[in-house]
Amino acid sequence: MSLQTTQTNIPSNMIDLGIGQPSPTLLPLDLMQRAANHRLQQGDPSLLAYGAEQGDGYFRLALAKFLTQGYGIPVDVDHLFVTSGASQALDLICTLCAKPGDIVFVEEPSYFLALRIFADHGLRVVGLPVDAEGLDISVLAEKLTEYQPKFLYTVPTYHNPSSLTLSAERRRQLVALSEKHDFFIVADEVYQLLGFDATLPPLINYDQSGTVLSIGSFSKILAPGLRLGWIQGQPRVLEPFITCGLLDSGGGLNPFTSGIVRSVLELDLLNEYVSKLKTVYRDRSAALTSALRQHLSETAVFDEPNGGFFVWLKFSETIDVGALLPELIQHHVRVQPGVKFSAHGDLRNCARLCFAYYDSELLEEGVKRLAQVVTDRS
Amino acid sequence: MSLQTTQTNIPSNMIDLGIGQPSPTLLPLDLMQRAANHRLQQGDPSLLAYGAEQGDGYFRLALAKFLTQGYGIPVDVDHLFVTSGASQALDLICTLCAKPGDIVFVEEPSYFLALRIFADHGLRVVGLPVDAEGLDISVLAEKLTEYQPKFLYTVPTYHNPSSLTLSAERRRQLVALSEKHDFFIVADEVYQLLGFDATLPPLINYDQSGTVLSIGSFSKILAPGLRLGWIQGQPRVLEPFITCGLLDSGGGLNPFTSGIVRSVLELDLLNEYVSKLKTVYRDRSAALTSALRQHLSETAVFDEPNGGFFVWLKFSETIDVGALLPELIQHHVRVQPGVKFSAHGDLRNCARLCFAYYDSELLEEGVKRLAQVVTDRS
Repeated sequence: MSLQTTQTNIPSNMIDLGIGQPSPTLLPLDLMQRAANHRLQQGDPSLLAYGAEQGDGYFRLALAKFLTQGYGIPVDVDHLFVTSGASQALDLICTLCAKPGDIVFVEEPSYFLALRIFADHGLRVVGLPVDAEGLDISVLAEKLTEYQPKFLYTVPTYHNPSSLTLSAERRRQLVALSEKHDFFIVADEVYQLLGFDATLPPLINYDQSGTVLSIGSFSKILAPGLRLGWIQGQPRVLEPFITCGLLDSGGGLNPFTSGIVRSVLELDLLNEYVSKLKTVYRDRSAALTSALRQHLSETAVFDEPNGGFFVWLKFSETIDVGALLPELIQHHVRVQPGVKFSAHGDLRNCARLCFAYYDSELLEEGVKRLAQVVTDRS
Repeated sequence: MSLQTTQTNIPSNMIDLGIGQPSPTLLPLDLMQRAANHRLQQGDPSLLAYGAEQGDGYFRLALAKFLTQGYGIPVDVDHLFVTSGASQALDLICTLCAKPGDIVFVEEPSYFLALRIFADHGLRVVGLPVDAEGLDISVLAEKLTEYQPKFLYTVPTYHNPSSLTLSAERRRQLVALSEKHDFFIVADEVYQLLGFDATLPPLINYDQSGTVLSIGSFSKILAPGLRLGWIQGQPRVLEPFITCGLLDSGGGLNPFTSGIVRSVLELDLLNEYVSKLKTVYRDRSAALTSALRQHLSETAVFDEPNGGFFVWLKFSETIDVGALLPELIQHHVRVQPGVKFSAHGDLRNCARLCFAYYDSELLEEGVKRLAQVVTDRS
């Protein structure tokens, strides 16, 4: 008997370039086993009790040290609140900071599953355009005369799906606007540590007066099955999360797993693992973009990724990627249609491809299959 | 340096009879270590990947077997949806099944931290009276002519805080009313497996047409730090949970921990542990109630618990337990004031005491300290 264990359930002959997940072959089972042994041999059962609402103090301390090194800027242990992953953080932000009917600003395109969480909370989403430097700040300023958003959701670095990084100047402008117009910036910074080269500091570094909530996660840098992440922000901004009903009732959000990941950090196992991931992902990104240039340069354009997981393909306006899906599936390849990433049902000529999941050979084969279908249609 | 790890932070000379948690000295560190080793040695990294939205199929299978035995009625694997604990389940139910301003029925008294979760979601709570058989069904029927609740929240077995168990006849009546008036029953059944003797089947067993959502958890029968639980219900009722935005984005709610607890179940380590807990808790309950009879029989009444964690003390109407708290703390003892468990600011002469956390000697000493203060006031 075979039962479903993981979220993905891809037929064996299918190459699903749309999937946005870490490589299953790289999941660090040995590393987690070593950390679990280390933690569970200490004779300290506190990770089995209801946890401190903000998260285990020793775990937060180890995380603050890791982020200080990884971000290249000091991260204060009191500015970290432990979550059960970025999605849960976003869900809790929706519960505590907004109510049905409230406006949320997002990028166009935006992470499509965040849009689904906003919909579950009855929030009204307004999409803002992006260009090569990320979110278009002048359009944002204009929209702020029309709407009063509860928050703006952004992926500032190695954007999902566009791979773009918001420029330093725009980061400053965005934060200044959030202060002037009194809205939160929910910065989904889960790709921040997955740059191929040096990058800008995370958006939280530009926070002046507590308008930024920075969401981080171990899903992309260690393992998604852990359901472990954090929100970084000023203590008075974190306070409503730490004291909310969910935390008061259940205690800290993931004490057992954070206890084990504390050992991952204290044994200094994570830096080496992330370095390895970056090398692998850089090679895979190069393989994917090389294949795209070879097979699809006539029909699609894209920005070269500098990190993260994704390539965002733009076909000519005559192509509707969603409509091509049945044929793509017949050719044993899938992508994520751009329309899913639009707040307004647009971006139909676009597609998200992920270079993290498959090795270079399968990425190239996937692109060949994609090109075969698209070229037939052009 | 000492950092906060657990939710509770009780001064060393304080006996906090109000705390509602499993005994820290009984937390099964060895058992969890054995299970973690077993699972992480299998060479199967699937528990590190994004998990199946409903929960790992093998974990659900093992859980269904365990519950079938524990409940004494068949539990179907397809009727189980894995959560990150009862509080998170309740939070998700509020997000997906209700909107701010909606009415929720609760028992009076009700679990006070559930009330906080409802408040975070902007729900309006109406408390219904209970008697020795649990929820008063005739008052419920009456209130249903006045209100249309989205759901009724109940702890049907070994109630928190009252320790009462809803009678079989009332379980049938309650389910019939939920069908007639079209509301969900959210049954918090986390104490179901902690009876000192045989008890009624859980409320979910009385479900006819999918009006019951039964919340279960490993917090009371294994370890709260795991943040692992489940919702049991008919598949079409679970469907909106399995397909919601939070699950679509983050995958199953706790794959890593449920992978390890799968080994707890498959190695058959849980039944013996729960048996041990029941023996310990029965002895502690006897010690607590014996001390109460000895020291407080003149000033307070209570129902003898048959399971669960709690004793619900009712003092004479002239005593306001909340107002006594500063003096109790001076005498190094605390209780949970009854007013916290009221939807309407009532129950001021009541207090919740927990017999799970402390051993018999400390429970007796706590009651002596409590009696000293209360007797002075009577």
